[in-house]
Amino acid sequence: MDYFSTRRTVRKYSDKVVDETLLKEMLEAAAHAPTTGNMQLYSVIVTRTDEGKRLLSPCHFNQPSVEGCSVVLTFCADFNRFERWCLVSDAVPGYGNFQSFVTALLDTALFAQQFCTIAEMNGLGCCYLGTTTYNAPQIAKVLELPSRVVPVTTLTVGYPSGDAPLSDRLPVEGIIHAEKYADYTDDDIRRLYAEKEAREDSRKYVQENNKKSLAQVFTDVRYTKEANEHFSRLYLDFISDMGFVMPE
Amino acid sequence: MDYFSTRRTVRKYSDKVVDETLLKEMLEAAAHAPTTGNMQLYSVIVTRTDEGKRLLSPCHFNQPSVEGCSVVLTFCADFNRFERWCLVSDAVPGYGNFQSFVTALLDTALFAQQFCTIAEMNGLGCCYLGTTTYNAPQIAKVLELPSRVVPVTTLTVGYPSGDAPLSDRLPVEGIIHAEKYADYTDDDIRRLYAEKEAREDSRKYVQENNKKSLAQVFTDVRYTKEANEHFSRLYLDFISDMGFVMPE
Repeated sequence: MDYFSTRRTVRKYSDKVVDETLLKEMLEAAAHAPTTGNMQLYSVIVTRTDEGKRLLSPCHFNQPSVEGCSVVLTFCADFNRFERWCLVSDAVPGYGNFQSFVTALLDTALFAQQFCTIAEMNGLGCCYLGTTTYNAPQIAKVLELPSRVVPVTTLTVGYPSGDAPLSDRLPVEGIIHAEKYADYTDDDIRRLYAEKEAREDSRKYVQENNKKSLAQVFTDVRYTKEANEHFSRLYLDFISDMGFVMPE
Repeated sequence: MDYFSTRRTVRKYSDKVVDETLLKEMLEAAAHAPTTGNMQLYSVIVTRTDEGKRLLSPCHFNQPSVEGCSVVLTFCADFNRFERWCLVSDAVPGYGNFQSFVTALLDTALFAQQFCTIAEMNGLGCCYLGTTTYNAPQIAKVLELPSRVVPVTTLTVGYPSGDAPLSDRLPVEGIIHAEKYADYTDDDIRRLYAEKEAREDSRKYVQENNKKSLAQVFTDVRYTKEANEHFSRLYLDFISDMGFVMPE
């Protein structure tokens, strides 16, 4: 489990290009990840050209890893392909709904994560872009996505340049519950987050943002209520627009 | 990439118990999977007792792997822990919305898949249960989940008994798009699904279900419009009930 415990997110890449054959082999291996009913409800759009990256960059708030990586992979929940198969097979598909979207979203996440693991084991570095669900409509426009194809997550991929830091994690006891969910007391919470809050980089982060606590950097700066609510409406409307209609 | 291309879903398990220390080590390693803003928006409920499995079994339509495995892991999108941390840190959380739910859902899926890979590499077999998003309210009741904790997926885990079949996958060209999404022609679709349809087990499956095509087994038997729409409403209502309120 050495690799798994020491893996790290890589945001800075060398100029070395990710070989096209290697990429295809890694995606092929990743597609053996578990998938609901073996439906493989995903597609991946591979962006290699400078022009393609330039167009995607603002969709990810110009995070430098987009233009700075070798390949951008946009992972999409895809019921289009499966439905097309139904239609040429005299079958009437019923997948234009929320449950089907969630199924495809999970399939897509499992595939993306399997790819990430394989790529990292092959010496590559990856970074997930959470901005994908914020700016999905713009991404869909750039990538010319049809109905029933919704961007879920993005990986920037390349050979690492320099050392990436190892991220801290909560004590594992904090995420495991035996038999029933044992809700946390305030003391549990303080104990679980104590190490994270005491880290040098956390303290610096609080100071730089002029906040009183690390949690405030999250609530007031990084993941604000206003932004979350704004992008909730955008993403939900977009999912409906793309043909996964919400129940009334 | 040998492991990745030959891995298989395991639904039948021997009586050998998954060691508790090993399980914890594997979960700890899996928690190094990528996570949004290092928030780790998930919890896992570990069900080891016969009583616990017996209670969960109907939530998964009595699939035999639930009572037949060594450990059931229910992976939940969890904003409860993070919000509790905000509240003890003088920070006002704004995560009771759809975007936050999707973020936590992705975090959870990545964690679950990382665990699945680690477990399989350690000789264990796993099976995902898609029924988790169908019967989430019942699962939440059994596991006593509080607000902002929503079941997303489940893994049954144990040592394999007998050989599990290797699943077929679509030709990888069928899931990769270069630069833009190239929509499929009917001929593309027929070519991509030809091998799957020609398989002995597929033909048997069509016959047993008295259908004219393999796709009809999916649309008319396995994943019907009626069931999808029914469970869409249930899951969406449940997510709202659990405090991730949908925009109006």
